[in-house]
Amino acid sequence: MRTTTGWQADPTTHTLRRATLQRRDLRPDDVAVRVDYCGVCHTDLHALHAHKDDTDGALVPGHEFTGTVSEVGSAVTDFAPGDAVAVGNIVDSCGTCPMCRAGQENFCREFPTLTYGASDRQDGTGTLGGYSREYLVREKFAYHLPAGLDPAAAAPLLCAGITVWEPLQALGVGPGSTVAVAGLGGLGHLAVKLAAALGATTFVISRTPDKAEEAHSLGAHGFVVSTDAGQMEAVRDRFDVVIDTISSPHDLTPYLQTVAMDGTLSHLGHLGPITVNTTDLLIGRKKLSSAGSGGRPSTAAMLRFCAENHITADIELLPSSQVNTALARLELGDVRYRFVLDMSDLD
Amino acid sequence: MRTTTGWQADPTTHTLRRATLQRRDLRPDDVAVRVDYCGVCHTDLHALHAHKDDTDGALVPGHEFTGTVSEVGSAVTDFAPGDAVAVGNIVDSCGTCPMCRAGQENFCREFPTLTYGASDRQDGTGTLGGYSREYLVREKFAYHLPAGLDPAAAAPLLCAGITVWEPLQALGVGPGSTVAVAGLGGLGHLAVKLAAALGATTFVISRTPDKAEEAHSLGAHGFVVSTDAGQMEAVRDRFDVVIDTISSPHDLTPYLQTVAMDGTLSHLGHLGPITVNTTDLLIGRKKLSSAGSGGRPSTAAMLRFCAENHITADIELLPSSQVNTALARLELGDVRYRFVLDMSDLD
Repeated sequence: MRTTTGWQADPTTHTLRRATLQRRDLRPDDVAVRVDYCGVCHTDLHALHAHKDDTDGALVPGHEFTGTVSEVGSAVTDFAPGDAVAVGNIVDSCGTCPMCRAGQENFCREFPTLTYGASDRQDGTGTLGGYSREYLVREKFAYHLPAGLDPAAAAPLLCAGITVWEPLQALGVGPGSTVAVAGLGGLGHLAVKLAAALGATTFVISRTPDKAEEAHSLGAHGFVVSTDAGQMEAVRDRFDVVIDTISSPHDLTPYLQTVAMDGTLSHLGHLGPITVNTTDLLIGRKKLSSAGSGGRPSTAAMLRFCAENHITADIELLPSSQVNTALARLELGDVRYRFVLDMSDLD
Repeated sequence: MRTTTGWQADPTTHTLRRATLQRRDLRPDDVAVRVDYCGVCHTDLHALHAHKDDTDGALVPGHEFTGTVSEVGSAVTDFAPGDAVAVGNIVDSCGTCPMCRAGQENFCREFPTLTYGASDRQDGTGTLGGYSREYLVREKFAYHLPAGLDPAAAAPLLCAGITVWEPLQALGVGPGSTVAVAGLGGLGHLAVKLAAALGATTFVISRTPDKAEEAHSLGAHGFVVSTDAGQMEAVRDRFDVVIDTISSPHDLTPYLQTVAMDGTLSHLGHLGPITVNTTDLLIGRKKLSSAGSGGRPSTAAMLRFCAENHITADIELLPSSQVNTALARLELGDVRYRFVLDMSDLD
């Protein structure tokens, strides 16, 4: 076994504490990654809350990180020490089911192995996430970080970025499309940048009127205050695609009313059951979808697109020792738009 | 005013009774229709139940009927006395909104005028439905009944037929598609006939194993018993389109699991709020839609397609005097697959 240092959940204090972590020995198809930057995702917060009733103390969050290859296994062909890499929220899958064969490892029939909180497919040990200085990952699930992308600001692309990229691609967004992004947070601000770069006329729908200027600076062409009935009425039946990134449960009706005939609302903000009025779908033949994560080909394509279009997240970079502050502020929505932890203080 | 005879709700007995009805005088763009056959739709049952607390006694159900033009207004150009016609659940719309201009009068921004239980756009009187011997309708919302279609068995095409036709068309069903129809009733049996005639490989999903033979006789290529976990697992991720016609609230998860990647479940069986697990949409990038009724161009196209492919509903024809029996049996699900009332006993 190898050892590294990371930030592990303490069930008694409900916070993360610095701890020595065990990593597996390098397998033939593994790359060892020195984690340089790791984004702080809402999922990390949910995992920490869920962990409060758990006493095994194994939780190490973090599933959007960039770093540098430090060592490669004997069978690795695509990476060499020193390469800049990125890792997202999936680190393995069965590789043989129809979804994996189609390059949609995120929909693996046997469920993909998540970057933390899952069981390794070979030895059954629990996966520990990227809030640590080293991560061991199968070569297949590491991505070359394209030159020109700032590695700190690129880290959130691996979860927030791919989560909004997938529906934009699946729903055919491009020149001529009209897209609205509901909610301007970690997911939303990347959705705006990506939709605008894809050529879509892009709007932001937000409760917060004072975000208008920022929305435009991110590339939005229009801004709608969701609590202003007149503004919402003015965009009725307007958007081919609504990317709904609002992270708390909310009434879908006002947002579905802004979807154009034959358009789609993609609900990304939170998982779990949601309720929809069938008449909101029926009138205008609208569709409801969801998304989260992406397959390997899609993730690689997203990174290429971001490099070509100079897109990264707008981040607040903190030393990893401030991880508990970052999580507390994220819970309050006090971040524009993503915290990224600098892991160099773990050396 | 004109008078005719029909079946009107009696709020004291919660049944329909024979009554003399008033119809408007013929307007320049009206056709007067002698109603020959009217289908009995679940909506009629719902309207009657909703009417129980209402004492104005005005409810006359019926919104899928065929008949014969008896008289035409001075401005009518497309119909002449003696023409075979069909009328569905919409008899007027604003005509000027984007939806109406797009031929989607069913999505009229000002809401379309329904065949019964609505207010006439010109004089504000309540619309009384097709459970009567005569109906006055704007020429624009009457359809020529194509030759070769039995007028009794064609009546349900005007509501059940168009309701399933719309999603099949909107979702691009044709040769190469794989479609499942969940629930084999009034809507479902027409969905099977239409999907199969469109060239799709068509399955039926039903709780009732003994409907397998009938499903095949309607044109289905496969039959899945929904309560058999093994059979449901065998069709996981299989269908490009699932037409869900189940009329009672039900868990969508097992049906969404049969939808193929990027496919759609169209929920038609009942209106109102439905709950869906976002992960059931997320995994496989699936979509949820709904449908009901259709615009004028789509309705006319559906009738042409049915005539070319010799498609009508499988019906049980009853004299209109047995309307209360038909409604009671429909409530019990005791009909294969649609009741149609013969209105000639109202003379």
